[in-house]
Amino acid sequence: MYNDMLKNIISSALREDIGYGDITSNLCIDSNMMAEAIFLAKNTGIISGIEVVKEVFRQVDENVLVDFQVKNGQRVNKGDIIGQVKGTARSLLAGERVALNFLQHLSGIATKTAGLKDMANDSSVKIVDTRKTTPNLRVLEKEAVRHGGGVNHRFSLDDGILIKDNHIKGAGGIGKAILLAQKSAPHTLKIEVEVSDLAGVKEALEYEADVILLDNMDLEMMAEAVKLIDGKALVEASGNMADKDLQAIAKIGVNIISIGGLTNSVESMDISMKFK
Amino acid sequence: MYNDMLKNIISSALREDIGYGDITSNLCIDSNMMAEAIFLAKNTGIISGIEVVKEVFRQVDENVLVDFQVKNGQRVNKGDIIGQVKGTARSLLAGERVALNFLQHLSGIATKTAGLKDMANDSSVKIVDTRKTTPNLRVLEKEAVRHGGGVNHRFSLDDGILIKDNHIKGAGGIGKAILLAQKSAPHTLKIEVEVSDLAGVKEALEYEADVILLDNMDLEMMAEAVKLIDGKALVEASGNMADKDLQAIAKIGVNIISIGGLTNSVESMDISMKFK
Amino acid sequence: MYNDMLKNIISSALREDIGYGDITSNLCIDSNMMAEAIFLAKNTGIISGIEVVKEVFRQVDENVLVDFQVKNGQRVNKGDIIGQVKGTARSLLAGERVALNFLQHLSGIATKTAGLKDMANDSSVKIVDTRKTTPNLRVLEKEAVRHGGGVNHRFSLDDGILIKDNHIKGAGGIGKAILLAQKSAPHTLKIEVEVSDLAGVKEALEYEADVILLDNMDLEMMAEAVKLIDGKALVEASGNMADKDLQAIAKIGVNIISIGGLTNSVESMDISMKFK
Amino acid sequence: MYNDMLKNIISSALREDIGYGDITSNLCIDSNMMAEAIFLAKNTGIISGIEVVKEVFRQVDENVLVDFQVKNGQRVNKGDIIGQVKGTARSLLAGERVALNFLQHLSGIATKTAGLKDMANDSSVKIVDTRKTTPNLRVLEKEAVRHGGGVNHRFSLDDGILIKDNHIKGAGGIGKAILLAQKSAPHTLKIEVEVSDLAGVKEALEYEADVILLDNMDLEMMAEAVKLIDGKALVEASGNMADKDLQAIAKIGVNIISIGGLTNSVESMDISMKFK
Amino acid sequence: MYNDMLKNIISSALREDIGYGDITSNLCIDSNMMAEAIFLAKNTGIISGIEVVKEVFRQVDENVLVDFQVKNGQRVNKGDIIGQVKGTARSLLAGERVALNFLQHLSGIATKTAGLKDMANDSSVKIVDTRKTTPNLRVLEKEAVRHGGGVNHRFSLDDGILIKDNHIKGAGGIGKAILLAQKSAPHTLKIEVEVSDLAGVKEALEYEADVILLDNMDLEMMAEAVKLIDGKALVEASGNMADKDLQAIAKIGVNIISIGGLTNSVESMDISMKFK
Amino acid sequence: MYNDMLKNIISSALREDIGYGDITSNLCIDSNMMAEAIFLAKNTGIISGIEVVKEVFRQVDENVLVDFQVKNGQRVNKGDIIGQVKGTARSLLAGERVALNFLQHLSGIATKTAGLKDMANDSSVKIVDTRKTTPNLRVLEKEAVRHGGGVNHRFSLDDGILIKDNHIKGAGGIGKAILLAQKSAPHTLKIEVEVSDLAGVKEALEYEADVILLDNMDLEMMAEAVKLIDGKALVEASGNMADKDLQAIAKIGVNIISIGGLTNSVESMDISMKFK
Repeated sequence: MYNDMLKNIISSALREDIGYGDITSNLCIDSNMMAEAIFLAKNTGIISGIEVVKEVFRQVDENVLVDFQVKNGQRVNKGDIIGQVKGTARSLLAGERVALNFLQHLSGIATKTAGLKDMANDSSVKIVDTRKTTPNLRVLEKEAVRHGGGVNHRFSLDDGILIKDNHIKGAGGIGKAILLAQKSAPHTLKIEVEVSDLAGVKEALEYEADVILLDNMDLEMMAEAVKLIDGKALVEASGNMADKDLQAIAKIGVNIISIGGLTNSVESMDISMKFK
Repeated sequence: MYNDMLKNIISSALREDIGYGDITSNLCIDSNMMAEAIFLAKNTGIISGIEVVKEVFRQVDENVLVDFQVKNGQRVNKGDIIGQVKGTARSLLAGERVALNFLQHLSGIATKTAGLKDMANDSSVKIVDTRKTTPNLRVLEKEAVRHGGGVNHRFSLDDGILIKDNHIKGAGGIGKAILLAQKSAPHTLKIEVEVSDLAGVKEALEYEADVILLDNMDLEMMAEAVKLIDGKALVEASGNMADKDLQAIAKIGVNIISIGGLTNSVESMDISMKFK
Repeated sequence: MYNDMLKNIISSALREDIGYGDITSNLCIDSNMMAEAIFLAKNTGIISGIEVVKEVFRQVDENVLVDFQVKNGQRVNKGDIIGQVKGTARSLLAGERVALNFLQHLSGIATKTAGLKDMANDSSVKIVDTRKTTPNLRVLEKEAVRHGGGVNHRFSLDDGILIKDNHIKGAGGIGKAILLAQKSAPHTLKIEVEVSDLAGVKEALEYEADVILLDNMDLEMMAEAVKLIDGKALVEASGNMADKDLQAIAKIGVNIISIGGLTNSVESMDISMKFK
Repeated sequence: MYNDMLKNIISSALREDIGYGDITSNLCIDSNMMAEAIFLAKNTGIISGIEVVKEVFRQVDENVLVDFQVKNGQRVNKGDIIGQVKGTARSLLAGERVALNFLQHLSGIATKTAGLKDMANDSSVKIVDTRKTTPNLRVLEKEAVRHGGGVNHRFSLDDGILIKDNHIKGAGGIGKAILLAQKSAPHTLKIEVEVSDLAGVKEALEYEADVILLDNMDLEMMAEAVKLIDGKALVEASGNMADKDLQAIAKIGVNIISIGGLTNSVESMDISMKFK
Repeated sequence: MYNDMLKNIISSALREDIGYGDITSNLCIDSNMMAEAIFLAKNTGIISGIEVVKEVFRQVDENVLVDFQVKNGQRVNKGDIIGQVKGTARSLLAGERVALNFLQHLSGIATKTAGLKDMANDSSVKIVDTRKTTPNLRVLEKEAVRHGGGVNHRFSLDDGILIKDNHIKGAGGIGKAILLAQKSAPHTLKIEVEVSDLAGVKEALEYEADVILLDNMDLEMMAEAVKLIDGKALVEASGNMADKDLQAIAKIGVNIISIGGLTNSVESMDISMKFK
Repeated sequence: MYNDMLKNIISSALREDIGYGDITSNLCIDSNMMAEAIFLAKNTGIISGIEVVKEVFRQVDENVLVDFQVKNGQRVNKGDIIGQVKGTARSLLAGERVALNFLQHLSGIATKTAGLKDMANDSSVKIVDTRKTTPNLRVLEKEAVRHGGGVNHRFSLDDGILIKDNHIKGAGGIGKAILLAQKSAPHTLKIEVEVSDLAGVKEALEYEADVILLDNMDLEMMAEAVKLIDGKALVEASGNMADKDLQAIAKIGVNIISIGGLTNSVESMDISMKFK
């Protein structure tokens, strides 16, 4: 359950960062001293992670008040105040680093997703994530992709069928692999198959794959493939997409562009927590 | 305990990625089919995460053989074979994504650290990480920093004293904060204080701080500060260091340069797992 | 990951049954005494749970030898020896109850599934389970259904789309609900919708549902529905199916029959563990 | 601690059923839409599991209101409203299946227990459960037995002494086993011994067992045994008791009848959750 | 299950003591350096905790060899070698403190128990522990009591019935409390009642308590009580027993002497781990 | 994080003590009966563990009211009321034993620490604990030491550098060990080295150790060592300190006296919970 996962991710992150306790604050700051701080955008970007920040401070000290001016998925500009926290100085300091680590990372993902979506410049193509996520943060990162305007691919190996080159080798061919999947797959799942040339496209079509993934094709071959498929299956394009001309790819008529870099090569968005 | 932590991080990462089981492989690939694959560097970089990859496959299936040609911290070039795995095709596919997600991310950190260390071009200055790490992966990321030639700052709030601006406000001044810390701190810890101007440097010196952190100073002020300190405390420089002239900073005589971007804005190293 | 889940389910079951230790055996039986026992079928049925029994004894004492004559999914008759265990008498007694509780329950499910499949008497129709499983045992129960010749429906709410009456109410109609799902669903999932009359069938077809679930229809209406659908969507029948004429339903041309009772109203298969 | 166990059982059941989130509801139902639903008995039976249902919805969303008209252990008739829930439609749908899975199963146990108690038709004989419970649900199932008017046998191997045939073999005889137990058992526990013939009864009496379990005896031998024991020990009868004439057994003067089928072969009580 | 509990207690103790890793050893000692060490008794005492020490080193590094000359429950003299460990110096140092903390504490308990048993100087009286144990170490401490020649009272509130003064107040009298317990208690448990004067003894006898606990009586009243009870119930004496004349109490004919101080006021046995 | 650790320690302690439930109270005491009780000091001592007691009752039943007259670290005399609890009798009884086990143990530590501090009779010397703590209770025991007026040494092996005899052997000498540590240690940690003779003191000084631990020296050698060190390093004395003349040691000018017995050989403070 999402809620429960969030709580566990955060409690272990706090345990990791705080350990037995914040020695410096305990030594230097009176336990009753109150403080306020703001979250300040130091770049333009798309915010993600607001409910994470709230849960961080709730776990540190349920008397801390957290209030956000913006919503997840909203664009902010450099200098904008995103939200504020109020509570004992010790509690604010205890939660600060973990809250920021999440907020900066998730907003970084949302910002990158939105940027690539803008580049594709075509509302009908979906910018989609992959399983190339940070271990143990997938549920949050996939949500950040949605906040940036992207769409999610399968969450894990148990909730989608994607037949790749190694499965094809193992099964003895594209057609055979598709047949095996069709025979016993849960009837709730579509069958997607990865191909890297036009022969593959044709075989996938012949065996009625539901989705065809064009892996690492150049623009010309991709265009040919889309023409062959002609609406008889969904088309996904993949392979270092962050470095390619997404607008051109979108124009060809691909339905889905999936990009590992949305989640595995992310620059943190620069956000600071400043005490008043 | 590090070993135990590693196992837990990996088992939850596998649970996250595999869920109830790898449907595609179970449908398309015979359970007895054997396979071999290599880990291939597709860029130049420094490897980190070898023991993680081993543990991933050990947890998936203890009969998988994993063998690495290189060691953590070793530089590889584009096209180099890093290692290989051998086992049932299903087990290799079940572990592939998690293994690569760790290996690419950690090698990305090691590579970035080594790059910045080269830039500083001075063996006496230490390139140091921060607490700006990915939640729940700190222990691995700090190790990757060491593989890249960096050194670790404190791990968590309980194992180091770093008096920052908010602690100073709370205590009523730099000197007061240092005195409070000296009074009751565990005698095994040094006292570090963050200052942002030369007055701060002087006060920190007067109260005998063990380490002085120069935050966001320009090169000139930093040089002045180092002169004032004159060996009476360790000197750490911090504040968007990844974008600055590290060689110049090193030349001034700073002992330590700490950089959040070592761990929070990392490009994954491009490594693939290719079936033979 | 399935393997890891299995281990956790069993370790907590053992903790539940053994607590601080088996007082009776510790008092009455010498710690070195060796023993052998057989698992004996006391009814005819389909076996499921062999790997569970092995893991139970592995956790109790890794020196216990467990050996099975039959495989999961195999039919046994009254009086057949299913397998045997060998080890210290204390270890066999410590694992006995938990091993049997799993083996009897899971074999009960496999047996019931196989019985209903026989009743349908048509290899092209799939007997499918539901989410009406015993809390925290779903992964094992769904496997037992497969051992009995059944097929699995979705595992959890995150890996399949099934639009039910309440979703239809919430969305404002069958068509609207389907459109909402088509707009943002992961492209790997089919869209299934539950209908209870022929108008519903028509609307689902019009909006191109991938799967149509006929809920609690009588045989006549079901036949009409299948005719209307005419291969344009998969057809699932549901609603107290264990009490109905499965052969007649299969003949109509339904693709899938889903039955909650496969997992929530199960008679344990009678299996004993007898010491030699 | 019971409370804590309940919370853990439920949180893992929710994680099992919901996973990363309820895709269908998230796609089709507005997050603010409110709803109400009733729990409706579709058969006559004894209710058990009310506090479980409350905790399920509390964990899903603490703003859901749950209200029950009946108490655990109370009989309801077909068509009776048992209780109701009120909250966002998404939260009700997220908790529905898990709540019903528990409520139906536990009420099935209470109903079966009450039925067998009625059959025995003698208030002085106790209907008692065994360790043949569903793995990891024992604490709830034993409570359901109490709700049905039954009494609990020991919870686990650490809180009762029951010398069975294998212990007798191991110790070298009934008398020797009893002596061993008497020597070092915690003084808070009675010593119960299982016998299958009248010679066993006599030996158990001679060595002053506190409780004698008559295993799989026919009615005649059981009557003889009760006469021999004559109040010098408690008498428990066991062995496929659900299929026997409990009234006749009760009349003989047995104190306790223990029945594995109370918990391992249970038909779920038919209860639905209907949206208004 | 005992085995599983032991592993969990130890793994969290190691995590507590080692944290992210043993900095000092990692800095100063080569990772390949081998070492041997002995466990040396620096006082006379009874050893307990051998399997704990073995598991500690197994968890730290499964290649460490641990070998003990003595068994749990065996007496050693000052200067005796208890056992030895062999492995990398880093592994020995990583496990040293946790191993010793357990071994010294548990041997302290065994030694104290044996001392008090010697004082009672009567093999027919049982020296028994209480629930006054160190939180989360009860299973190990109760085993140490057995190693010292003592016997265990109930483990937890769910596996024994002990009616104390507050239960008597709540029930409205000794007799009423016993009747309530007799009515619904599991038939495997005896009923023990605590009394503090002779009237209490008489009432407990009248209502047929199985065990009577004489709380804080002086020797004379205790003798009178034992005479009144005259074998009709077991007799337990309690109340600062560690400070009393146990031999005199034993002579009176008390069956059981229970002592909280066995586990809650223990001097660690002095044992060192010395590198060769 | 300290708060989270406290909760986990207590929830497992309650699970240990209560198991499936408090049978005696459930049988004898009405579930609605209310009660009040006081915590009564039966000796003079220093209180520690107040927040633990509060959390114990909060976990048992959040409606129990707990109120303390004294604060952690405050001295109480025999007969003083320390605090009171109010709630259902069942809840008070369920939490009683665990609450007292913590309160008595932690107050025992605080009392012992205060006693040794008084003995040293010198406010400038610090009485310091060690890693000889009860497994899994370190965080609470170290807090109790502070409540008694002591100061904490490092918490675990990852947050302090203490070079002992075995490290010195491994490194090949005192100086070499210090150099290795200085080279790569986190710059936030001091370097402490243990020596047992004056030659060791001199070598430690020469290599600029930050702290020198004098292990098991007699008073005369200790005095000589302090003179040699002459303020150039902190001085810690260690080795069965609880049995030595702390006042004499303090007078010599030692800065820190560390004592394992503060936490590993503790007499519980006698505190009872009495129902009104």
